[in-house]
Amino acid sequence: MQPREQTPVGVDLNADVGEGFGRWSLGDDAAILATVTSANVACGFHAGDPATMATTVQTARERGVAIGAHVSYRDLAGFGRRYLDADEEELTGDVLYQLGALAGIARSLGAEIAYVKPHGALYNTIAVDDERGQRHARAVLTAIARYDPALPVVGLAGTRYLDRIREAGLTPVAEAFADRAYTPSGALVSRREPGAVLHDPDLVAERMVTMVRTGTVPAVDGSLVEVQAQSICVHGDSPGAVTMAQAVRTALEGAGVTVRAFTTEPQPSSSAAGNG
Amino acid sequence: MQPREQTPVGVDLNADVGEGFGRWSLGDDAAILATVTSANVACGFHAGDPATMATTVQTARERGVAIGAHVSYRDLAGFGRRYLDADEEELTGDVLYQLGALAGIARSLGAEIAYVKPHGALYNTIAVDDERGQRHARAVLTAIARYDPALPVVGLAGTRYLDRIREAGLTPVAEAFADRAYTPSGALVSRREPGAVLHDPDLVAERMVTMVRTGTVPAVDGSLVEVQAQSICVHGDSPGAVTMAQAVRTALEGAGVTVRAFTTEPQPSSSAAGNG
Amino acid sequence: MQPREQTPVGVDLNADVGEGFGRWSLGDDAAILATVTSANVACGFHAGDPATMATTVQTARERGVAIGAHVSYRDLAGFGRRYLDADEEELTGDVLYQLGALAGIARSLGAEIAYVKPHGALYNTIAVDDERGQRHARAVLTAIARYDPALPVVGLAGTRYLDRIREAGLTPVAEAFADRAYTPSGALVSRREPGAVLHDPDLVAERMVTMVRTGTVPAVDGSLVEVQAQSICVHGDSPGAVTMAQAVRTALEGAGVTVRAFTTEPQPSSSAAGNG
Amino acid sequence: MQPREQTPVGVDLNADVGEGFGRWSLGDDAAILATVTSANVACGFHAGDPATMATTVQTARERGVAIGAHVSYRDLAGFGRRYLDADEEELTGDVLYQLGALAGIARSLGAEIAYVKPHGALYNTIAVDDERGQRHARAVLTAIARYDPALPVVGLAGTRYLDRIREAGLTPVAEAFADRAYTPSGALVSRREPGAVLHDPDLVAERMVTMVRTGTVPAVDGSLVEVQAQSICVHGDSPGAVTMAQAVRTALEGAGVTVRAFTTEPQPSSSAAGNG
Repeated sequence: MQPREQTPVGVDLNADVGEGFGRWSLGDDAAILATVTSANVACGFHAGDPATMATTVQTARERGVAIGAHVSYRDLAGFGRRYLDADEEELTGDVLYQLGALAGIARSLGAEIAYVKPHGALYNTIAVDDERGQRHARAVLTAIARYDPALPVVGLAGTRYLDRIREAGLTPVAEAFADRAYTPSGALVSRREPGAVLHDPDLVAERMVTMVRTGTVPAVDGSLVEVQAQSICVHGDSPGAVTMAQAVRTALEGAGVTVRAFTTEPQPSSSAAGNG
Repeated sequence: MQPREQTPVGVDLNADVGEGFGRWSLGDDAAILATVTSANVACGFHAGDPATMATTVQTARERGVAIGAHVSYRDLAGFGRRYLDADEEELTGDVLYQLGALAGIARSLGAEIAYVKPHGALYNTIAVDDERGQRHARAVLTAIARYDPALPVVGLAGTRYLDRIREAGLTPVAEAFADRAYTPSGALVSRREPGAVLHDPDLVAERMVTMVRTGTVPAVDGSLVEVQAQSICVHGDSPGAVTMAQAVRTALEGAGVTVRAFTTEPQPSSSAAGNG
Repeated sequence: MQPREQTPVGVDLNADVGEGFGRWSLGDDAAILATVTSANVACGFHAGDPATMATTVQTARERGVAIGAHVSYRDLAGFGRRYLDADEEELTGDVLYQLGALAGIARSLGAEIAYVKPHGALYNTIAVDDERGQRHARAVLTAIARYDPALPVVGLAGTRYLDRIREAGLTPVAEAFADRAYTPSGALVSRREPGAVLHDPDLVAERMVTMVRTGTVPAVDGSLVEVQAQSICVHGDSPGAVTMAQAVRTALEGAGVTVRAFTTEPQPSSSAAGNG
Repeated sequence: MQPREQTPVGVDLNADVGEGFGRWSLGDDAAILATVTSANVACGFHAGDPATMATTVQTARERGVAIGAHVSYRDLAGFGRRYLDADEEELTGDVLYQLGALAGIARSLGAEIAYVKPHGALYNTIAVDDERGQRHARAVLTAIARYDPALPVVGLAGTRYLDRIREAGLTPVAEAFADRAYTPSGALVSRREPGAVLHDPDLVAERMVTMVRTGTVPAVDGSLVEVQAQSICVHGDSPGAVTMAQAVRTALEGAGVTVRAFTTEPQPSSSAAGNG
């Protein structure tokens, strides 16, 4: 397809934080929270004990970073990275429980949840529009709609799931992954394939500038693929993660892109984005 | 002391509910919720998976029963009945997490948390005014004060803890235990002593009518001991629990006592009660 | 097919026991352990705290009931009834952990594990010979082979999984389900279908006598289907479970069938059985 | 007291390993296992998922390091560092469960548990000879005696607990802490006091050489205090832990002390040690 030049109004950077549990910590949250504009805060089901959640919310709040509920399957031992065949009502309950728990901690600190992003296997499951993906998407969206329909929901750019979010009366936020390769059809290259994860901060940063400017990224076969995203996910827990996040932010700002939370985005431009 | 005749304005009946977890259930919640006026809902740390919590809140709401957060130490294996030496910040986080989780589920059903009652070992720990009791009382009360200082907190009638609640800027609700024997000084007879638990529904009902009318109950030595309580705890998970709860309610109503949630109590009379 | 008259040498009755956790109990273990010859003891991952495990092992031992390790996915909240996409190495570790834990408790009581039976969703997953069924079967069988290759493994009669057990150098034990309807091809009718579960103790008992005598049971369409099983699973946690288990045992013994643990079965007949 | 010159036959170095859980890791186990002679392996209750346990046992085995069961209160969120008021029977079950679980994993790798060392709050609780210390000591020792009375049990040098071990028919192993200051009476200085933890590797190493040679260490007041230990605990999870462990080993070997597992110690000298 033909890349479209557009005025880069801005983009959000999001990362997973608060992914310790009790004695264990993970990643450099302080450095990440100094770089991103939205923080996906673990809610206790894959990571995140209450004291860690409180510290994370407090730091995010001090830095003006939007707080998202990073809801997960109940699976501490698997870090929420394993599909769990929960039935719909159970999963709706689990999501409500996590949303409320984070909201309770945020409230005690004068902060609020600004959005929801499913984590790990739950994220991947609902990005696929098959029976179980639809079932778990319904469970998650029912929970959010009942809890607070004003909460935006982050999902993979280009997926049918973003439509499901709209159909549930909720606001989708399309996101791209900074360090992941894309297929010509706009899907992420599976992590089992070579080249699925990009490690060069400069290349990653350049791709994201291109993505924001043109709504496209180069796919693995060299073609341009449409990826229209309001938010870019940078990772926080791998070696070099902070460096890459900073490189992406610096490159975006150097290209005149405003990096700011999507929750602060002017609403008209919001409705124009999503999975085109 | 001299029993004081007073106009019985009314009293609350509370019971523990929602104490199943996943496949496991406990007690006859439907029958208990048809009898009491306040429901202590387990929040997931000693019992209460999210789906059970939702069902419990829904039933309580339909019956007009006030919903309380039954917060606990994190101890599913021990049902929250074992002292856990959490540090103050951890425990504050754990209480906030549970409050928020229940509030999230309640919110999804158009309901709200009306009060807080610590569960099991946590309840017993903070009823004693020693170093660890004070430490854990501070942790609990800090959590509630930060979350919502308008939430009343249930505690054992006659304890110093009720003053701690007031000192934290919160509203204490003094409670009596229907089926427990009292020492002459107003403490509960330890469960390790013979006669600590009363099993005769008629006797228990009569004692509670006396307590509401006169602010006293007969102690184990036959003397009268002052027990001024706005709420009476009836148990829900033992054999005969429902029968006893019904007997207490019937006797109270037969004696002209209004049985209603303390959360609906006229405020002036509230400030007059507590541990005298 | 043509039913084959054979001398009924005997059959085993197995049931799930020890499925409480902490404060929660499930089923009437004492009555079930008085009826069956093999006890599938929960190992802590779907149910079964250590004190419950000890009590269960002790009762089984006193009654001469063989002790099996009822290993599960790690899922207390779901009672092991939800598929969990564990990777092979994780699942091998989880099975070894549970085997060892039960063996440790058994050893302290002078008892031993006599066999292994996967529980719930794990059982159902490996009964299907697809990619994930094969993967999780490999994980389970690798664990058992490394732990003790002399331990027999219980699996659904007629499945390819029984061959997988043999291929892993282990001994399969084919089992039938007393209260389940069978398709003409020998599979269990899905619980989502009407008539999947049989509730009439007399009918169930008669079918099991037929199964032991002829190696067949009537399928849902009236045809006879081959079900050659060395063990019959009776359930322990549903209403009427004990009555049904007793009816099956009484009918079998009335028909001259010896009811005894498969672990005490003469070995030559063992090799002739399995999924024919 | 007068320091006693003795022929240094040897000493054991032990450290905590395998203290990750799922996605989380802790400390540099490979480096620690290259330095110590006994490895306290977490058994899943404070840390240590089964796959981590397997990896840890395998590495220990390859390096000829003795494998100990590092049993804990059930408290993942608190890393086993919080007192939990388990009753005696529960705790006996919990210890048996953990012993068996580690033994199962070890067995699958051709390895065996060589000793038991309680972890964290459980260790500290039973080092104090009060009601709860005695109760939990009984629970732990009952579990070990029933499981395998030949397993030695590690405890703090100089405590009454070492006698309790002997009285239970088990073999005590007295241990010293390399990086902790001692009071004149031989207790560890509380971590709440300044100077409780020593950070200088050279000083720590020198103290341990003195301890092995003379059976004494300098207390905080400069006096010499008797500390007769067969094993020295070095920590594995703090910054500089590996450096300090290596410094201790190097200094001991430089002083002619043989560093070897206490499980390989000649038995006559074993009986002479303990809390003098």
